[in-house]
Amino acid sequence: MAASPEEKYELITRRLQEVLGGDSIKAILAEGRTPKCYWGTAPTGRPHIGYFVALTKIADFLRAGVEVTVLLADVHAFLDNLKAPLELVAHRTKYYQNILLAVFASLGIPTSKLRFVEGSSYQLTKEYNLDNYRLCAIVTEHDAKKAGAEVVKQVESPLLSGLLYPGLQALDEQYLGCDFQFGGVDQRKIFTFAELYLPRLGYAKRAHLMNPMVPGLGGGKMSSSDPNSKIDFLDPPEAVRRKIKGAFCEEGNSAENGVLSFVEMVLIPISQLRLERLHGDTGTDSEEGQNATGDQRPFVLEGAPEGTVFSIFRKEEYGGSLHYQAYERLKRDFEEKKVHPKDLKTAVADCIVRLLEPIRKAFEDNEEWQKVEKLAYPDPNAKPEKKKKKEKVYHPPPPGKGKNAKQGLAAEVGAAAVSTGEDVVQPAVDRPST
Amino acid sequence: MAASPEEKYELITRRLQEVLGGDSIKAILAEGRTPKCYWGTAPTGRPHIGYFVALTKIADFLRAGVEVTVLLADVHAFLDNLKAPLELVAHRTKYYQNILLAVFASLGIPTSKLRFVEGSSYQLTKEYNLDNYRLCAIVTEHDAKKAGAEVVKQVESPLLSGLLYPGLQALDEQYLGCDFQFGGVDQRKIFTFAELYLPRLGYAKRAHLMNPMVPGLGGGKMSSSDPNSKIDFLDPPEAVRRKIKGAFCEEGNSAENGVLSFVEMVLIPISQLRLERLHGDTGTDSEEGQNATGDQRPFVLEGAPEGTVFSIFRKEEYGGSLHYQAYERLKRDFEEKKVHPKDLKTAVADCIVRLLEPIRKAFEDNEEWQKVEKLAYPDPNAKPEKKKKKEKVYHPPPPGKGKNAKQGLAAEVGAAAVSTGEDVVQPAVDRPST
Repeated sequence: MAASPEEKYELITRRLQEVLGGDSIKAILAEGRTPKCYWGTAPTGRPHIGYFVALTKIADFLRAGVEVTVLLADVHAFLDNLKAPLELVAHRTKYYQNILLAVFASLGIPTSKLRFVEGSSYQLTKEYNLDNYRLCAIVTEHDAKKAGAEVVKQVESPLLSGLLYPGLQALDEQYLGCDFQFGGVDQRKIFTFAELYLPRLGYAKRAHLMNPMVPGLGGGKMSSSDPNSKIDFLDPPEAVRRKIKGAFCEEGNSAENGVLSFVEMVLIPISQLRLERLHGDTGTDSEEGQNATGDQRPFVLEGAPEGTVFSIFRKEEYGGSLHYQAYERLKRDFEEKKVHPKDLKTAVADCIVRLLEPIRKAFEDNEEWQKVEKLAYPDPNAKPEKKKKKEKVYHPPPPGKGKNAKQGLAAEVGAAAVSTGEDVVQPAVDRPST
Repeated sequence: MAASPEEKYELITRRLQEVLGGDSIKAILAEGRTPKCYWGTAPTGRPHIGYFVALTKIADFLRAGVEVTVLLADVHAFLDNLKAPLELVAHRTKYYQNILLAVFASLGIPTSKLRFVEGSSYQLTKEYNLDNYRLCAIVTEHDAKKAGAEVVKQVESPLLSGLLYPGLQALDEQYLGCDFQFGGVDQRKIFTFAELYLPRLGYAKRAHLMNPMVPGLGGGKMSSSDPNSKIDFLDPPEAVRRKIKGAFCEEGNSAENGVLSFVEMVLIPISQLRLERLHGDTGTDSEEGQNATGDQRPFVLEGAPEGTVFSIFRKEEYGGSLHYQAYERLKRDFEEKKVHPKDLKTAVADCIVRLLEPIRKAFEDNEEWQKVEKLAYPDPNAKPEKKKKKEKVYHPPPPGKGKNAKQGLAAEVGAAAVSTGEDVVQPAVDRPST
């Protein structure tokens, strides 16, 4: 599979909503070279399963032999929420990296062509900053504002940082050495901004590949700030089922339906990937799937007809199980009320539980990651350790540093960390919904 | 002189239009510490004698024992005019430093407490840039725009750089370790911006000392872009007299009168300095005046009454010479048409010729500086060197790279350099009129 340049291009671009500059990728493939991709995410709040949408697409890139750079935009994460000190962001960066690696392992995608880069490793260098200044000397306020209109939080008193993000994201393409950047279609104006301005600095114009936007389980854009729309990668089965049960999924309404969208953008693609692999299509890496963690069966019930990519269990008395070979058919059935939301939800919850099982197991088997998790997202309800209290008894503290003072501080730290995790700003590079 | 903290404070603040945070300077002086000052200038076009206004005031600081840092804002100069490559800016930075040192030598001010810092030495570091990002994450577009309203060139499509300058200038206070920043009163909004935002980054709020704005010889703000208002530090006497002759100086009109203003802000202060020195007041440095270059007499004619700081020669038949002990009296006489513009201009031209004589001599005695001058401001009319033409004869160039092609390039380079020198943008730190 994906042997010819055309097949690789098809794999790279399938299911995307839009491709800008596809010819340049075709040319690279035709020359037998390896295209390089960059995708960025800011390690802020706990990543939720909405990330599966981007990661499923990135799996396609890796299978087509693309070298993928994941930018862990720690500087942005720090700037988006100055309440989170750099140290906390460093823990979150590690946490994100662990999650992403566990997801790829669960998908059976070898990550030898996956590179993680922390923004701070180059975004604070002399060269980068001089380029940032050069860019600021040619970019108008108007263009910067327009570029960020969809992804920078629109507030009454906009901050300068919002005007800088588009330029920084453009420079990242150059400094990460990519041929194309990948993101949600909400990044479109940021992407066309980069296409316009990078050449003015003497740098190459990059291609841009865009995923459609996927509504969250609450019905809107999937975001960490809406607890109803957020299923954590480490949520246990009962939490997954409870959250899916509460998701917005109106009978007959396929618009703004996060449950249906998850089937389209995550479950069916993963099912297809597994089916392709069963048929011997392992992408460019013959080792694909060999070290996959967790149940690798497609989301298809036994006895389903050939070509099925998604099944919905239903008792015989209600008409028996449903089997779909393509998303469009499921969508039509749902719109025609031939699929009840309850059955769909049960099927989707089962799939998500299966998807998350190997990720939770990876977490439970990895002490280092567990430590990082505690540091990255401290428990807001954690009580000060008893030990410290005892110490105070033996060493009376100076005024204002006593028992109550210290408890107060601990409580504050906890509270700050929670609000950092929950109150997620949508910066230019925070793209969980791609 | 300037022995007591009060006397030093008086010397530091005399003739200023406004002082913000003067108490903090008083406190430093009262503790017997040395106040630290920062003044910035962007090495763009050829510096003109309008710089005397700021330098005369800086002489006061140095005489009061203040440690003065001159920021040669090369990064800004590069950004303000991307046509000027960094290499050219480096030559201009050296040229500016040479001029400033020659001026202080001509004023007889020891420069042991004067420090030159190039912006590029710290403005591209990791720490500075992280602080810049932090600042951008708390500064609103509105505040940045307001801060730059008077000093950033107002154009139809404002550039992002214009929004960054106020923040960078604020950070410079921290990174240059100053107690107060000095500038023209046109910097007021930039200064109050710094007072507001530096503490929000956890840095100290600095004091701000402001010179009045001085009209150029053309009648408006003195600027390199108006050739009529620009007398170069290296202009020979005949050019000085010609330019002063053409200066706007309407009989009876003291407003927007660059000639009168030059008397007030440069000639009388320098006269006073020289008189103080003649009386043994040498500031905090007992060596003041010992190595002064050029004629050190005050701008006072022989036979003038005690206390005169400025004289205007006039033939007996027209009423004889005029002697002033203070600017206000001269101004009143001019308004009442008791002083004719022609007499004033002749007197001022004489003084400027005397001021520039030691500076031109320093230039003529310094081969290194002469080389730098050629590189910093190449002669637009310079013809390609003959040598190169000969080489072409022996080595036929490839198509499009021949004699004509090369000559064309040389002409373009020359032209670009001229426009860089003449077409000066007014950035936040380009403050020749202070």
